[in-house]
Amino acid sequence: MGKYEIRAVGKVDLEKPASMQTNLHNRWHPDIPSVETIKDGETVKIECVDWTGGQIANNDSADDVRNIDLTRIHYLTGPFEIEGAEPGDLLLVEIMDVQPFQEQPWGFTGVFDKSNGGGFLDEIYPSAAKAIWDFEGIFCTSRHIPHVKFAGLIHPGILGCAPSAEVLETWNKREADLIAANKLDRQVALPPEPTNVHAGSADAELKEKVGKEGARTVPGRPEHGGNCDIKNLSRGSRVYLPVHVPGAKFSVGDLHFSQGDGEISFCGAIEMAGVITINFKVVKNGMADLGLKSPIYIPGPVEPQFGAGRHIYFEGFSVDEHGKQHYMDVAVAYRQTSLREYPWTSFGGGCIEYLRRFGYSDYQSYLLMSCAPIQGHIAGIVDIPNACTTLGLPMDIFDFDVSPSGPGKPLDMGTCAFETGVAEGRVAAGGKNSEHSFGGGLTYKDGPV
Amino acid sequence: MGKYEIRAVGKVDLEKPASMQTNLHNRWHPDIPSVETIKDGETVKIECVDWTGGQIANNDSADDVRNIDLTRIHYLTGPFEIEGAEPGDLLLVEIMDVQPFQEQPWGFTGVFDKSNGGGFLDEIYPSAAKAIWDFEGIFCTSRHIPHVKFAGLIHPGILGCAPSAEVLETWNKREADLIAANKLDRQVALPPEPTNVHAGSADAELKEKVGKEGARTVPGRPEHGGNCDIKNLSRGSRVYLPVHVPGAKFSVGDLHFSQGDGEISFCGAIEMAGVITINFKVVKNGMADLGLKSPIYIPGPVEPQFGAGRHIYFEGFSVDEHGKQHYMDVAVAYRQTSLREYPWTSFGGGCIEYLRRFGYSDYQSYLLMSCAPIQGHIAGIVDIPNACTTLGLPMDIFDFDVSPSGPGKPLDMGTCAFETGVAEGRVAAGGKNSEHSFGGGLTYKDGPV
Amino acid sequence: MGKYEIRAVGKVDLEKPASMQTNLHNRWHPDIPSVETIKDGETVKIECVDWTGGQIANNDSADDVRNIDLTRIHYLTGPFEIEGAEPGDLLLVEIMDVQPFQEQPWGFTGVFDKSNGGGFLDEIYPSAAKAIWDFEGIFCTSRHIPHVKFAGLIHPGILGCAPSAEVLETWNKREADLIAANKLDRQVALPPEPTNVHAGSADAELKEKVGKEGARTVPGRPEHGGNCDIKNLSRGSRVYLPVHVPGAKFSVGDLHFSQGDGEISFCGAIEMAGVITINFKVVKNGMADLGLKSPIYIPGPVEPQFGAGRHIYFEGFSVDEHGKQHYMDVAVAYRQTSLREYPWTSFGGGCIEYLRRFGYSDYQSYLLMSCAPIQGHIAGIVDIPNACTTLGLPMDIFDFDVSPSGPGKPLDMGTCAFETGVAEGRVAAGGKNSEHSFGGGLTYKDGPV
Amino acid sequence: MGKYEIRAVGKVDLEKPASMQTNLHNRWHPDIPSVETIKDGETVKIECVDWTGGQIANNDSADDVRNIDLTRIHYLTGPFEIEGAEPGDLLLVEIMDVQPFQEQPWGFTGVFDKSNGGGFLDEIYPSAAKAIWDFEGIFCTSRHIPHVKFAGLIHPGILGCAPSAEVLETWNKREADLIAANKLDRQVALPPEPTNVHAGSADAELKEKVGKEGARTVPGRPEHGGNCDIKNLSRGSRVYLPVHVPGAKFSVGDLHFSQGDGEISFCGAIEMAGVITINFKVVKNGMADLGLKSPIYIPGPVEPQFGAGRHIYFEGFSVDEHGKQHYMDVAVAYRQTSLREYPWTSFGGGCIEYLRRFGYSDYQSYLLMSCAPIQGHIAGIVDIPNACTTLGLPMDIFDFDVSPSGPGKPLDMGTCAFETGVAEGRVAAGGKNSEHSFGGGLTYKDGPV
Repeated sequence: MGKYEIRAVGKVDLEKPASMQTNLHNRWHPDIPSVETIKDGETVKIECVDWTGGQIANNDSADDVRNIDLTRIHYLTGPFEIEGAEPGDLLLVEIMDVQPFQEQPWGFTGVFDKSNGGGFLDEIYPSAAKAIWDFEGIFCTSRHIPHVKFAGLIHPGILGCAPSAEVLETWNKREADLIAANKLDRQVALPPEPTNVHAGSADAELKEKVGKEGARTVPGRPEHGGNCDIKNLSRGSRVYLPVHVPGAKFSVGDLHFSQGDGEISFCGAIEMAGVITINFKVVKNGMADLGLKSPIYIPGPVEPQFGAGRHIYFEGFSVDEHGKQHYMDVAVAYRQTSLREYPWTSFGGGCIEYLRRFGYSDYQSYLLMSCAPIQGHIAGIVDIPNACTTLGLPMDIFDFDVSPSGPGKPLDMGTCAFETGVAEGRVAAGGKNSEHSFGGGLTYKDGPV
Repeated sequence: MGKYEIRAVGKVDLEKPASMQTNLHNRWHPDIPSVETIKDGETVKIECVDWTGGQIANNDSADDVRNIDLTRIHYLTGPFEIEGAEPGDLLLVEIMDVQPFQEQPWGFTGVFDKSNGGGFLDEIYPSAAKAIWDFEGIFCTSRHIPHVKFAGLIHPGILGCAPSAEVLETWNKREADLIAANKLDRQVALPPEPTNVHAGSADAELKEKVGKEGARTVPGRPEHGGNCDIKNLSRGSRVYLPVHVPGAKFSVGDLHFSQGDGEISFCGAIEMAGVITINFKVVKNGMADLGLKSPIYIPGPVEPQFGAGRHIYFEGFSVDEHGKQHYMDVAVAYRQTSLREYPWTSFGGGCIEYLRRFGYSDYQSYLLMSCAPIQGHIAGIVDIPNACTTLGLPMDIFDFDVSPSGPGKPLDMGTCAFETGVAEGRVAAGGKNSEHSFGGGLTYKDGPV
Repeated sequence: MGKYEIRAVGKVDLEKPASMQTNLHNRWHPDIPSVETIKDGETVKIECVDWTGGQIANNDSADDVRNIDLTRIHYLTGPFEIEGAEPGDLLLVEIMDVQPFQEQPWGFTGVFDKSNGGGFLDEIYPSAAKAIWDFEGIFCTSRHIPHVKFAGLIHPGILGCAPSAEVLETWNKREADLIAANKLDRQVALPPEPTNVHAGSADAELKEKVGKEGARTVPGRPEHGGNCDIKNLSRGSRVYLPVHVPGAKFSVGDLHFSQGDGEISFCGAIEMAGVITINFKVVKNGMADLGLKSPIYIPGPVEPQFGAGRHIYFEGFSVDEHGKQHYMDVAVAYRQTSLREYPWTSFGGGCIEYLRRFGYSDYQSYLLMSCAPIQGHIAGIVDIPNACTTLGLPMDIFDFDVSPSGPGKPLDMGTCAFETGVAEGRVAAGGKNSEHSFGGGLTYKDGPV
Repeated sequence: MGKYEIRAVGKVDLEKPASMQTNLHNRWHPDIPSVETIKDGETVKIECVDWTGGQIANNDSADDVRNIDLTRIHYLTGPFEIEGAEPGDLLLVEIMDVQPFQEQPWGFTGVFDKSNGGGFLDEIYPSAAKAIWDFEGIFCTSRHIPHVKFAGLIHPGILGCAPSAEVLETWNKREADLIAANKLDRQVALPPEPTNVHAGSADAELKEKVGKEGARTVPGRPEHGGNCDIKNLSRGSRVYLPVHVPGAKFSVGDLHFSQGDGEISFCGAIEMAGVITINFKVVKNGMADLGLKSPIYIPGPVEPQFGAGRHIYFEGFSVDEHGKQHYMDVAVAYRQTSLREYPWTSFGGGCIEYLRRFGYSDYQSYLLMSCAPIQGHIAGIVDIPNACTTLGLPMDIFDFDVSPSGPGKPLDMGTCAFETGVAEGRVAAGGKNSEHSFGGGLTYKDGPV
């Protein structure tokens, strides 16, 4: 009894297109063939590609982010059959570890172009941008965001069991209703999309069916969790997942080395390929016994700890950067915690403004807030008309003193990666951090309402 | 140099109506006369009444909550003149301590009646309810919510400097615009209200002016913080507050023994009268130097600690309890983390459902989630159409095992206080925790959309 | 049901000599009369004088420390009769709160003169010294140790139930045996001492008996805890105390606003008078049921938190500052974590040396390590001949950057209080922080062995 | 820039005897040849064998522990030359990660036989015993100590730079002095030992020299740290190590998956082979600039967190289990926190006694206290004659409720591994956990002094 290894299932090949690997799939559908069977009580290692299936390169241009093909994401590993799991059970998934591949110790954070994916601040920061992060053990650093180092709060962005046909139909109907009723000038949901569908080892007919009916992986959904992007659902966490089909058909992917609450730049975590070690247990009749039709989880014991007093908290309310009052809009409130200060408002000065004092461009801060272990709290949600939210920036991720004292002392912060034509040109014109421009050299035309 | 005491300013009298005390006021207005001057660098003790000015009694009926007069709130202590503070400065407020009065070691949490105040879940739980909490040192317990004990994360719900005339005008205009544009079937903001205005020692003329122009204290506002209701803005916290008028005119009140993220039942904290000890420092030119036109804060070191792994987290998405899909609505998502499970939805089972297993009525859980140190996080805010939020319930506040295992084993949980006619009557009819009724005996008529 | 207060028992009078107050006593003896009865399950407030009974003044001289009368300490409040407690039970003591008196918001830390009390480093730092600490809410600061502020980890140094006659006899015998066998050139234990005995309301005869037999309060003892000086036995802690006599006869005192692990300067905590709020519960037959004949405790949830990474840890081994190797001596090892560096050893440079870089005198650091929330760990205790210990200094108690970087930049640190003749005189001669002298101006003559 | 890996240096071969691998050595000596050069600022991966060089097998007998050859330990990887390091510098070693080998996911904890190594409790528990631990990601479990699971506080037991010839001479002299003066009936230090010396790639002559002069690796030493066995010197820690020879000659080994404060059973950590990732930086002139001739360290941010209130603390004083009073003996005091209760003493009942209630044998508890993340604090070290120490047992490592309530309810705990002839034989005779025997079936003959 000397050497042995934990069983590896669902292997991937980083050199091969994700779309050609039968252990991967990129839609939720009950009929996608299982790749392997796992015993009740077993611990296995599951390999995952990054969520884009390798579309993003370790370089200094964000053109790949600009041109990403969003019909091809997210590539998940699975589905796995869990022995004995039946609809009505809960699948207790314990995340024993998550690690990047040893031979690919890096990841990326991206701001999507407003016209291709966008993000939480896309009306203000519409350009594609990127930061590459290097991993050294528990820590990461980026040549694109200097003077920052932090330990990964490493986790899977996506995990869940397959929907049943009924659940899938519910999803498709309610999201179609939303699309039908949409009056906003933006896409509000993603309907099934046959283009670039990948259904694992499905044959052509099944693949077509999955393309037509399969739910997109972008949103998390309350019936199974899915793309919940919960930063604290990290190592040691135990998640209770509703089982909707025989064998559970569990899939996982979209590994994150780290993420801030909100994952605000959409591709906002530090996205990576890697290996997740999971222990599976079937809780028979768990949905009824625990009264759960949605996932719950209990975090693990090894989250990086900074101490409560080592955070700077920004407060945001439901008044937007044009000075307009919204009614209890939490998203507006949370956005304000992050923004710069505008000359035309009587308030403001969130995290982006704060970090300008030290020389970070707005895009660097946008990227950083997306992927560093930022705390995003719903503070007050009942005092009409203003929801209050807070965004906590951990001070100890910086290698200089970021506490609030005296005028700013900018350091040389270099630049993050930009899409072609944006980075140098517009920055050169507007000047980095000038009053009316932003890190990407773009001018925010709008003023007060 | 034996005995001495920290200087007390702004004393209150718990036996006297709040409206007759010149150290209190209940509107924000730059002209409310200052009650005292505090030196730059000084630490003082400031006494506060509870936010209702004593409208709620330590008894077992929620009629007082039902009938609360909301034109009379919140009673704040101040304003205080801070020597040397000028517009453009920041006032650094360090909360050295907050304590209830020794002779009044109790507080209350209320659910407001839907027709008089309401709350985050008022469409489902429309009745007035109440829990009285007894304080013993750092801990509190309630006869209305048995088997629970926790340490206070004690803090002021409201603190801020007076608005300038310009800032006040901005507030009034933008909130009036919201009211004017309102198409919802509910009140969306509170305009100035002359009834029951209290302007401290103001003469009749000034009082009338304050009644006409003064901003209501209900919402927090980004220019000064105000009613931010941030549970972690507790002992040891340092808040940087923008100064808008000469002398800052700082006010404070609405003390909370504890509160959960969101303070969801509106009167959701454990409301109390007490004493706050504050150190004041003026940061000259701070608004420009730090780039801040809104408050920031750094938490203190003595928050109660449970350990990451000692929380149960509920996940909520932007699909409501009728099964309707919303677009990135964080409030909808956060509401789902708290709710029961409904037979007509394919998902659900939040904190209220979970606590039913142990015998708590829905109203007890609603009260508890409002005031216990619940963690409310914005997990993912970019995956259309679903925002994902999490609500973390600390397991160690219960004196029994609340971890997820096996079918529920209800304990005798007694009852919280209700408004007359609701408590016994409807509970008797529907039965506590029956499938189609709630703790208050009310039936939620609605089903799927 | 408006106002009420938690019952206060065992009141003290800060204006009156401790020796004249019948609620106090300064020996452990089963016959000292009880001062009051407390119900099983009751929460009460108990007032305490400082452990010296007021011998130390809030001034800038350590003459009072130099001349302290150690036959008169510690003054404890009690004993209290707990209804229903019998030998063999455990008394569950929950510390609901500890607070200084509002009208006496200060405390003191002392280094005892080597000839009168001494301390952990008395061979090196033999002079009496003192620091006065001012309390503002949860924080303390000292004019004698500038640039430091921290939250109190407030706790009672002493709590325990009275010994039975048999237990007392055991104590007296085993300590007498130690004294009889002593070959060290120092006092190794304190036998019963009739001088200045205080036995509460005992009559003359009983008082004489207590004087003859009563155990001194200095050492903690395994049968009842007593002067355990555990810094984390703070607010919210639950202690299980063996009961040796009917009614338990519980006493408490020696309140500390804060203390470091080891309380190294003997009077090393921040000593104060104040009020402790305790809930008492009798655990019938607890000693047998739990297999306990010594106290155990479970800490509370509100300890100040700094984050693991916000400490500087010094390592100490069983080689003393003369270069002599000891065998597994933990005290020698722990002493090394604290000391300066000596020119004649090939190792060294503990906390005192480290803090010299910033301008603190050795006596200031000695006082600070005694009372600040220092972590003292037994790291390795099996690798002959060296025990390894660590001493963790929290960085966040300083208002400047104490992290290890570059040469020292001394600040003006003023001075702590000294006994007459030492402070100015010898400091003037030797120079503060010169190579061969110490804060108190004393030269450590010894060199290598 | 797709795939790459962090550079691996100092590779080991688990299939080959440690004594035949030139990257390993088992003595401290300045002349042991360096195995590789590392750049200032570089991060590398270093492979390590377990400290015994593979003498312990993954089986259910402790005969290998019984017969371990202690002249052959510890096998360290190195020494490594760090570019630019000179005597007087500090080497800043940042532990980026520590991981077991993927193909050997297990480790061991051993109690040494009293006649071959011994341990902290060897007078009471003299037999060899063993527990094998299986690793699954961040967690470990043992078939020999059921119902326990915890996250590793993973760290190197040994790291340090080579001593100079002068430092080595100091070590040898002072330890020889101790041996010469020894009057105890046990070995007090380990002199240089030519048998089984391994000096890496040294030729025969040099090897002989190293055997004659080289310091044993067992004790940590204040000049360089070495075998400090500090459990919190874990991932993310930054250690400042004095440099004594050109190039520093850094070595590392004795990896621990977990360890309790004290590592009380000598082979008390969970010992493993694995890989440590380290970043090296040279701090020029650091010893003088920082005033350090001994190591200091700053812990990392990812220690497992349980919450203060999730520990049971046992108190120990300087009275031994025979009832004898010692003078300020910290080791005696710490030993008491761990022991069972004895019928002849009036006190007692430490961690071993406490865990008996749940069915653990004394040897199982002894092993568990050695390797689980036990907190060992020096509480009070000045109250003659009793030092007070505390041992904190984290409750959350057990999968059942270990809180103090009611009589014990033993579970089936199986058995740990024992040396031949002890386990079955003596256990059968005495009965597991009977009043006068211990887990290993041994009777502790002694009674009161």
